[in-house]
Amino acid sequence: MAREVVLSGMQPTGKLHLGNYEGALKNWVSLQDDYDMYCCIVDWHALTSMFNETEQMKASIFEMAVDYLASGLDGEKCAIFVQSQVKEHAELYLLFSMIIPIPWLERVPSYKEKSKSLGLDSYGFLGYPLLQAADILIYRANYVPVGKDQVAHIELTREVARRFNGFYQEVFPEPQAKLTKFAEVPGTDGRKMSKSYENIISLADTPEETAAKLKTMFTDPEKLRMGDPGHPEICPVYALHKIYTGEGLEKIAETCRSGELGCVADKKHLTESINDALAPVRSMRAELVGHPDVVWDVLNDGAKRARDRAQETMDMVRSAMGLTYDS
Amino acid sequence: MAREVVLSGMQPTGKLHLGNYEGALKNWVSLQDDYDMYCCIVDWHALTSMFNETEQMKASIFEMAVDYLASGLDGEKCAIFVQSQVKEHAELYLLFSMIIPIPWLERVPSYKEKSKSLGLDSYGFLGYPLLQAADILIYRANYVPVGKDQVAHIELTREVARRFNGFYQEVFPEPQAKLTKFAEVPGTDGRKMSKSYENIISLADTPEETAAKLKTMFTDPEKLRMGDPGHPEICPVYALHKIYTGEGLEKIAETCRSGELGCVADKKHLTESINDALAPVRSMRAELVGHPDVVWDVLNDGAKRARDRAQETMDMVRSAMGLTYDS
Repeated sequence: MAREVVLSGMQPTGKLHLGNYEGALKNWVSLQDDYDMYCCIVDWHALTSMFNETEQMKASIFEMAVDYLASGLDGEKCAIFVQSQVKEHAELYLLFSMIIPIPWLERVPSYKEKSKSLGLDSYGFLGYPLLQAADILIYRANYVPVGKDQVAHIELTREVARRFNGFYQEVFPEPQAKLTKFAEVPGTDGRKMSKSYENIISLADTPEETAAKLKTMFTDPEKLRMGDPGHPEICPVYALHKIYTGEGLEKIAETCRSGELGCVADKKHLTESINDALAPVRSMRAELVGHPDVVWDVLNDGAKRARDRAQETMDMVRSAMGLTYDS
Repeated sequence: MAREVVLSGMQPTGKLHLGNYEGALKNWVSLQDDYDMYCCIVDWHALTSMFNETEQMKASIFEMAVDYLASGLDGEKCAIFVQSQVKEHAELYLLFSMIIPIPWLERVPSYKEKSKSLGLDSYGFLGYPLLQAADILIYRANYVPVGKDQVAHIELTREVARRFNGFYQEVFPEPQAKLTKFAEVPGTDGRKMSKSYENIISLADTPEETAAKLKTMFTDPEKLRMGDPGHPEICPVYALHKIYTGEGLEKIAETCRSGELGCVADKKHLTESINDALAPVRSMRAELVGHPDVVWDVLNDGAKRARDRAQETMDMVRSAMGLTYDS
């Protein structure tokens, strides 16, 4: 029996951080053994906001692919590829655009909000969730691993699939959002780790850079000096311990509460835990950065396999719509 | 020196009529010796209004290609092809969508009007003139032969070219509308000949069908019976004479005015003129309909040549935008 299909995608924003790693990448790695996986680096989507600053696109794609591979995604098990290398996404997007009413797109919750906050009014920005629907449906994906904020987009994708299947023929499964539970990863300022907050620890950071960033990390604001009793449950350093420090977690909480453990020592411990956990990722990262051809080969090969699947789907789509006329 | 490029396009509406022939086809035929011509049958555009009735698409494309060839378009001189066979149109459309503000599309004069009158609200319908811009610019066309009602669309295409060239690099020439003077062709009811008025004479009509249609044609409403003096300047039959009856035109006008020429005889004369003029077109038509492979070969070959040019343009576009990253 054919395996079910998972599509995942990320905009090429450059180097990934612990939040991406814990929230998405580790999950993808665990899925690749059980599903036919397509991991798409969505450069066309990135154009909605970066259309006038594309100089970094190539470097960002490379860094992202390196992070994927270093995190354990396997280019043999999973097609890792760049969206724009598979033109069929654009063709399906265009065909969907003919059957989807504008109000469907205007009512996607993120549209009005982002359109205002980012000052975006391009035709392509309005079509963002429709391109996303094409990204997903072109692989006839059954599942899409997403965060809660993306569930509305998946719902639109399901509506697009339903409308197409209803107008023409049953071509698309209705994909399901695959929500994964994971601990929220705090950044160095205690807020959610996010590139836009400049509070991140990158997979690519050296152990020294990691140590320096953690040194400045926010802790329990009431624990001002050595000896003060702390509250691990509200301390972002402790939140990271819970992810990266296996044994001795209880003891950290206990000695923090009692005041015995100072923040400096505590952070030093966390630095070791994180650096240990990332050591294999970073060593593979360095290896890959030294051999860019290997990375581009993975992307080219992934694009080829993605294209095969996408072309199969487009044949079904054109046939369903009555748009086949080679002879 | 490279020849200048002309792009022309028509939606596949099935068999063409005298209005199309006089207003567009004859002009295209005269251009094919002096320009690199791309004649595109725009099936994706047709989807904006026909998305839910695509069963006739293939037959309509075939009939249109037959009419093109029978009218004298030469598949060797001119790339005759179907839009959806050249996927690059979709890719360029997508890229343009990222840099074009929605208000540019909303203010195209035909949008609001047609959107209301046809009840169209799809995302693709709003993007219609942008897809047209991609159709034109993907061949880096210098000229587009259009009617007056299309001039606003060409103006938008020029703005798209300008914006792209300004953001990235000079890739696109700014295409010019090529307005051609031709006599307006009246239909059998005296209004402009148009499929939607059901007043057409098709290139594919037999001489007998043509005769039957002309018999019912409107004439000067004040000339009710033989002997009444007529007014050729307001008579649609006379308007067709001016196009199809070479010698003896003066005499027709004179004897109509004097009342000597009756409408029945007059129409018989016109029938002969039209049937004579269309005889070579119709004979070639019949030949082609009997050899559909020849027609599909022309379309496949045309698509191949169009694709070559389109891929060349897309290489320039991707390079200008910084979206090349094969290695």
